[in-house]
Amino acid sequence: MALTTRLTQKLGIEHPIISAPMAFAAGGTLAAAVTAAGGFGIIGGGYGEPDWLEREFAAAGNARVGCGFITWSLARHPRVLDAVLAHAPAAIMLSFGDPMPFAPAIKAAHALLICQVQAMKHAREAVDAGADIIVAQGAEAGGHGSLRATFTLVPEIADYLARVAPETLLVAAGGVADGRGLAAALMLGADGVLVGSRFWASKEAIVPERFQQAAVGADGDATIRTSVVDIVRKKEWPAEFTARVMKNRFVDDWHGREAALASAENAAHELDRYSRAWQAGDIDNTGVFVGEAAGLIHDVRPAGDIIGGIVAQAERALARSRTAT
Amino acid sequence: MALTTRLTQKLGIEHPIISAPMAFAAGGTLAAAVTAAGGFGIIGGGYGEPDWLEREFAAAGNARVGCGFITWSLARHPRVLDAVLAHAPAAIMLSFGDPMPFAPAIKAAHALLICQVQAMKHAREAVDAGADIIVAQGAEAGGHGSLRATFTLVPEIADYLARVAPETLLVAAGGVADGRGLAAALMLGADGVLVGSRFWASKEAIVPERFQQAAVGADGDATIRTSVVDIVRKKEWPAEFTARVMKNRFVDDWHGREAALASAENAAHELDRYSRAWQAGDIDNTGVFVGEAAGLIHDVRPAGDIIGGIVAQAERALARSRTAT
Repeated sequence: MALTTRLTQKLGIEHPIISAPMAFAAGGTLAAAVTAAGGFGIIGGGYGEPDWLEREFAAAGNARVGCGFITWSLARHPRVLDAVLAHAPAAIMLSFGDPMPFAPAIKAAHALLICQVQAMKHAREAVDAGADIIVAQGAEAGGHGSLRATFTLVPEIADYLARVAPETLLVAAGGVADGRGLAAALMLGADGVLVGSRFWASKEAIVPERFQQAAVGADGDATIRTSVVDIVRKKEWPAEFTARVMKNRFVDDWHGREAALASAENAAHELDRYSRAWQAGDIDNTGVFVGEAAGLIHDVRPAGDIIGGIVAQAERALARSRTAT
Repeated sequence: MALTTRLTQKLGIEHPIISAPMAFAAGGTLAAAVTAAGGFGIIGGGYGEPDWLEREFAAAGNARVGCGFITWSLARHPRVLDAVLAHAPAAIMLSFGDPMPFAPAIKAAHALLICQVQAMKHAREAVDAGADIIVAQGAEAGGHGSLRATFTLVPEIADYLARVAPETLLVAAGGVADGRGLAAALMLGADGVLVGSRFWASKEAIVPERFQQAAVGADGDATIRTSVVDIVRKKEWPAEFTARVMKNRFVDDWHGREAALASAENAAHELDRYSRAWQAGDIDNTGVFVGEAAGLIHDVRPAGDIIGGIVAQAERALARSRTAT
């Protein structure tokens, strides 16, 4: 069976599943594996590091993939977009900032414009920028996000799009890690899903195995939204966005004491410890970026297996509804 | 058509929809109307005010309803439970605290024990207390709640119950305001839904019309989780629980300045203003308790109409899934 939606038709894919452009974790190998399995893979352009992007586009080979950026960071290094567009990506995804300045170049390159939004005010900006696809991202998502929840944001944006931009597609993100999440997202009015944490815990992700195993062993209560992982790295995120990470020694010490962390007295020492722990796969002293869906993830598998599992489970959930009514 | 689930069978109702026991807002008239329309209505026992409860049970007449309590408050006034059990409610719902001390009396009175939980740790307590039904409440809910989201909490608890207590039913709460939400909740593994904000905006709710109209006119970005509405009222909520209310003058002034609000200098004046505004239906200077679902609510209707609309829309959403696959 296949779940045919407007998203599968628009992207020319088999399953309505997109992999999230997770900064540092979603490289070309993961994106290519997702596309090969019938989804659509997106390389995590993150803060826009040119060498990393060249390497990961090379790793993706000839696979049809997209690339995602942190919009406020891209605004400081706009030439990175040109370098990526030279690879002829099928889509560019922009999150966390006004997409308008970048829309013309993306459309001129015949890439689809995917805008990830966290609130109604962002959805209105995305429509104004001419987004082909809007990703509604709830606060349960791992990594950066904001406060609205997937369960209300998706149907509210669906209603908005039906009114003002019915040709614009809608994808649900945040908390989607299995087939139940895909089926639920379709019920809420989405045309498909964008999946982060579940692919973060895949064989192809660029994530230390100890980070993945920590998430596999945790329940969904184990994560928190905080800005301490940005403060320590001197990433100047707008206040409305925080990062969901696992609670650990580092977060327990500094969450609620942000000013002290930023102080000259502590900043250098903590950044050094944070960076060394990141390299070493030390889960206690760095940022382990994963969502509430940690509680739904019980193994680390190849991305293709993950897609197959999501689709099969969604089909079963939808089939059960037929017998229930 | 009818959506038959384990919940409709367990409660002997037609539709898998429960109305939330919203303190002060969910009186006997609303609960009776929900039951009359084929759902299950629950009176909001709140902090346990005996006179209010007697009046509202009288208003419910002979309708088969339940009653819900704020558990940590009930622990301070345990006799209120006996007074309510004397009305032979079909169920008692406990939220926000350890249900264990009250479970024996509830079971002895042959009332079903419904435990609302906000995290996996609460779900484990609820199973230990012998809950017949667990309500998984996400942070998008109006009024009191915690941090986990409906979209991840429901399937994670479904998995947990399948493993340790397969006879225990699961209900989704938080962000469910229409038929898409009901259909999505069923996909996530719930047996039904508990609906708050949508019934708060019903004709039968005990809510000033100006509060309802403010929510009807708002989008879902208009609410926030905060403790300032509890601090001003001297309600000693455990720190893990906050209240979702509309952003307004009062919240803007004090959210982030909780210690100043609690200070002797400000507390009396603000409490006086808050209380007068509550009585007067002044939406700027009091707590307007409603969830992110405000963005999905566009009118104030009778509870029976609301239930009919939810069921019809859920049926349509599920029916569309049949043609899509």
